[in-house]
Formats: sequence, C-alpha cells, structure tokens
Amino acid sequence: MIIREASAADGNAIWAMLEPVFRAGDTYAIDRDITREDALSYWLAGRCFVAQDADRAAGTYYIQRNRAGGGAHYCNCGFVTAPGSEGRGVARAMLEDALARARDLGYEGMVFNFVVTSNHRAVALWRRYGFEEVGRVPGAFRNSVGEDADALVMFRPL
Amino acid sequence: MIIREASAADGNAIWAMLEPVFRAGDTYAIDRDITREDALSYWLAGRCFVAQDADRAAGTYYIQRNRAGGGAHYCNCGFVTAPGSEGRGVARAMLEDALARARDLGYEGMVFNFVVTSNHRAVALWRRYGFEEVGRVPGAFRNSVGEDADALVMFRPL
Repeated sequence: MIIREASAADGNAIWAMLEPVFRAGDTYAIDRDITREDALSYWLAGRCFVAQDADRAAGTYYIQRNRAGGGAHYCNCGFVTAPGSEGRGVARAMLEDALARARDLGYEGMVFNFVVTSNHRAVALWRRYGFEEVGRVPGAFRNSVGEDADALVMFRPL
Repeated sequence: MIIREASAADGNAIWAMLEPVFRAGDTYAIDRDITREDALSYWLAGRCFVAQDADRAAGTYYIQRNRAGGGAHYCNCGFVTAPGSEGRGVARAMLEDALARARDLGYEGMVFNFVVTSNHRAVALWRRYGFEEVGRVPGAFRNSVGEDADALVMFRPL
C-alpha cells in the first residue's frame, strides 16, 4: 500500500469512499444529503491523500490548518477507509502518514475537533497514537436513528 | 438599546465592528488580512443581529448551527462589541438575546468552540451565564505578538 497526494483524477474514487460514510450520518457531522460537489470541496479544501492498495483506493485523508489566523499552527485531519478495506490497517497507515506529513509541513499539533464517542474504532486508534481527550461536549452528536453521543476534542502535540 | 435582525443595509456597520477585532488577531481565529467580503460571508452565514443604541450600531452577533448533519441540534454564536461601546452591557444584552432566540429556534444547547483564554472578559461573561468549560486545547491560539493561549470549548444546555 502506498499513500500519495490526491490528484484531480481522484474525484470519483474519493467520492466513492466518502459517500457511504456521509450518507450513513453516524460518524461525521455532515449533512447526510450533501452533494458530491460539496463533499469534495470540503474534503479537498487543504491537502488530500489517497491510500492505494494495488489498483484500488483503500482510504483517503485530508490535512489542513485547524483554524485560520492564530489557530493555524495546529492542523486538523479527517480519515475515511473504503468500504471493504476495513480491518487491514489502512486507517493506521494513513494516520502514521498524516503525523509525519504534518510535522514536515511545520504544524505543532494535531486536533480532532469533533470525534463522535460511538465511533469506537477511531477513538481507540487515536488514543493508541497518543491523542488525549481534551474536551467532551455532552450530547453534541445525534446519529441517524436519533441516539445522542458526546463529541470529543482530541489532541496531540507533534 | 434594541437588538434586531441584520439587513442587507447593515454591511458597512457590521464590517466597521468586525474589522478592528479581526485585524487585531487576538480573540478570533480569523486571518488578520481577511477581506470585508469574506468576513461578512462568515459572519452572515447563519442569522445575524445588530444591537442598536439610538442611531448607532453598538454590537453584532450571529447564531448558526454548531455543526452540520448530526451536530445541528446545538448552535454556535459569535459576538463583537463596537469600538467605543465596551463596558455598557452590550455583550451581556446580546448574549441574553441569543439565548432566548436559540431556544425559540429549537436549539438544545449552545457551544463556543474556540474561546481564547486570554479573552478574559468573554470567558467571565460566558461563565456568569452558565457556560461550562468542557474542553481546553493547550496552546491552540497564537496571538498577534506570538504569545500562545489555550482555546476553550464552552457549553450550556438550553
């Protein structure tokens, strides 16, 4: 598996990974009916990468500044694994790539601003890589069947 | 003082209040060189209000959903008091207005996602109105002279 920067030719492959996650509405605070165009604008606003497993896109992540202005020395990332590629270390490989790349880009910390507590696999992975829970907004996320979960803020210095 | 919804005619008045705050770069994580157009797009993305003191705009605030999708049952607000109108209860009046209006709009909670700890007046006001610190990202804000401050997440149910 290699991880490479996304190109203009990756739009379809990236959307094929994002669509089921966003349509499900259980992990990302994104409108479930978001259009392909808006989803790609969001995902490609900063730098975007694709995990390539032979000829197949197995995952994608983005890295961008966490905030504008005085908040730009930390970065924020988002990760999605392709349907059918779960459990093969894709998320872990992307996170390792993101941590190295964020350091290269000069970022001093990485923040996840809205990690839904019911997304257990993500929370466990972030913790394993040194992210600490620095915030918890009670009931800030309502999933697709109306169940509420807390949203975590997770952080690690780089 | 009355607080009324902003109209298209308020662009100049709102920008006159936002510009010194954003240019200073000490409280909002906004690019200091943001254009008038981008600043107004940001401030007017949801519902926007103006505190009117006789014929003068004394402050402005916005209210919008905190997140899209599953995060839309909480709201987020931003407040700016006009230069020269500080210390007259403008921020307090706007916050009271925002809390009432947020309830009317059906929001179940209000979140401030990035309160710079060095913004002591704001932090004290939010606390006085029942907001609790539910998160703190260490060193997430760097001010205009390079000093770092933590960014708080503050929340209260409605």
